[in-house]
Amino acid sequence: MLLLAYRLVETELAQVTEHLRGLGRSESTALQQVLALVLENRGKLLRPTLCLASGLFNHYSTSLLVPMAAGVELLHTATLVHDDTIDGAQVRRGRPTVSSAWGDHTAVMVGDYMLACAAKLVASTRNLRVIDCFAETLRVLCEGEIGQELGAYQLGTSREDYLQRIAHKTAHLFANATECGAILSDAPEPAIQALRKYGLLLGAAFQVVDDILDFTATPEQLGKPVGSDLEQGTLTLPTILFLELGGSESLVRRAWAQPVSRECVNEAVVAIRDSRAVAASLDEARQLATQARQCLDCLPAVPARQALEELVDYVVQRPN
Amino acid sequence: MLLLAYRLVETELAQVTEHLRGLGRSESTALQQVLALVLENRGKLLRPTLCLASGLFNHYSTSLLVPMAAGVELLHTATLVHDDTIDGAQVRRGRPTVSSAWGDHTAVMVGDYMLACAAKLVASTRNLRVIDCFAETLRVLCEGEIGQELGAYQLGTSREDYLQRIAHKTAHLFANATECGAILSDAPEPAIQALRKYGLLLGAAFQVVDDILDFTATPEQLGKPVGSDLEQGTLTLPTILFLELGGSESLVRRAWAQPVSRECVNEAVVAIRDSRAVAASLDEARQLATQARQCLDCLPAVPARQALEELVDYVVQRPN
Repeated sequence: MLLLAYRLVETELAQVTEHLRGLGRSESTALQQVLALVLENRGKLLRPTLCLASGLFNHYSTSLLVPMAAGVELLHTATLVHDDTIDGAQVRRGRPTVSSAWGDHTAVMVGDYMLACAAKLVASTRNLRVIDCFAETLRVLCEGEIGQELGAYQLGTSREDYLQRIAHKTAHLFANATECGAILSDAPEPAIQALRKYGLLLGAAFQVVDDILDFTATPEQLGKPVGSDLEQGTLTLPTILFLELGGSESLVRRAWAQPVSRECVNEAVVAIRDSRAVAASLDEARQLATQARQCLDCLPAVPARQALEELVDYVVQRPN
Repeated sequence: MLLLAYRLVETELAQVTEHLRGLGRSESTALQQVLALVLENRGKLLRPTLCLASGLFNHYSTSLLVPMAAGVELLHTATLVHDDTIDGAQVRRGRPTVSSAWGDHTAVMVGDYMLACAAKLVASTRNLRVIDCFAETLRVLCEGEIGQELGAYQLGTSREDYLQRIAHKTAHLFANATECGAILSDAPEPAIQALRKYGLLLGAAFQVVDDILDFTATPEQLGKPVGSDLEQGTLTLPTILFLELGGSESLVRRAWAQPVSRECVNEAVVAIRDSRAVAASLDEARQLATQARQCLDCLPAVPARQALEELVDYVVQRPN
């Protein structure tokens, strides 16, 4: 059963897809092939859907919202290409990554190329507020990623450190999608702020669930080994709560040992998965989700609001 | 003796430097350290100087031109950080690269962070034309880099292929600097176009000279081994003309052999350096420079014009 949000913006989402395909039709044949690989391999298009649906409360201007939504998705995809390059990932959503197929240099440059195209799409709205907002989102997102990298392997990472990091690296892009959807539909300022806050909280809930799945899902569902955050030294909420609840520090430290021991990682994953930390993390995600839903209370009770409420449940319940 | 262009915009260039330093004063201490490494290690600031000097012909608005010039330099620096990361370079301008000091992940993200800051600086001008122009410049620049990568190791590369590639990867950023300087000073359209074309031709001349130096300079002057373009499979003008003039294809092919043989690279470098290809390449650079200078003829004979003319000579004559 397709979620209401996707049904409400179905036509415009198809136009977003068309915009992205159009980028693959660049002058150079070589670049065309690389972009086709990336842009044909789409995920759930959650961020552009949020952007479009947030525009439904007021003046739904597709000529502004479609390029904006495409820009948001493209920024997200560009960061995935850069992530895969650095992580040396071979496969993303069942297809070879750009770096594994064309090499690291091309992959970094293709990511930059997509950032440039995203900036052009957003600039085409001629709206200075969303242009500014978009550049700030990229800045904050990078700050979050850099913070994660430089703060890796720190047993002292607190719940607050974690929440700030995921706000930066994930939630701000969700907030950018909903806020700019509202701005471009000429929503009144309180609605813009409500939708922005909704995006921030929904994005945080989404990331907490993602971080839980890194322990509870199967490698097939994840498309990568279980516990890969842990292995890379990234302390996510389940691990932080595991330690807060008195879990063994040395178990976590062994999972970080170089060279990586799959056995030690698995041992830590099982201990954390079977501890109360998972349920406590899910509680945190549910609380964030409830707060996200409450942000919508001030908006008119139109189908778009129901659609955004449904997305909250979807984000917390998704199996992978 | 300081060039006239630098003297004319000295105060504003100091403000550009201050803007760049300001970025290093971000909230996170870790990010601050990384940015300080990159942003304290400046080169000749040629691109921001071109931007500022191009604004001198009309309404010289420093509140618009300084952030624009800082954005141009930051975009340039971001691409250098990404290049160094992928090339595995250890040192840039005598200091460790971001990737060698903090790892590849941080380096790619710091490059992205700088792109975001550059976009924010340009957006702060509130001028939609320069915002658009800037995003397009990044797009074209990446297209050039990707083209260079995907077109590597092709003996059939023509002079035209080469000129198009350097237009994309180097000259467009010079053109962006001069064009946006003119736009932000409310220059009349013919002056904007003249300065844009000047930037394109000057940038091309600059790159041809750079590519000649890869054969004729010393490793100390270059800060890297001689012939490194050749070694990486990039056919630049001296090699293209060497082959056009009947030089040995197998000599070039041997320089590409994997694993790299320094001896074979040196043999090819010496053969190309001692051939007529170097003088022919310098002729090409001089022709581009002459054309760049001619673009200025339609501009008023003020000191700024003399400064830009002098930069043409400087670019063609620089020893390293």
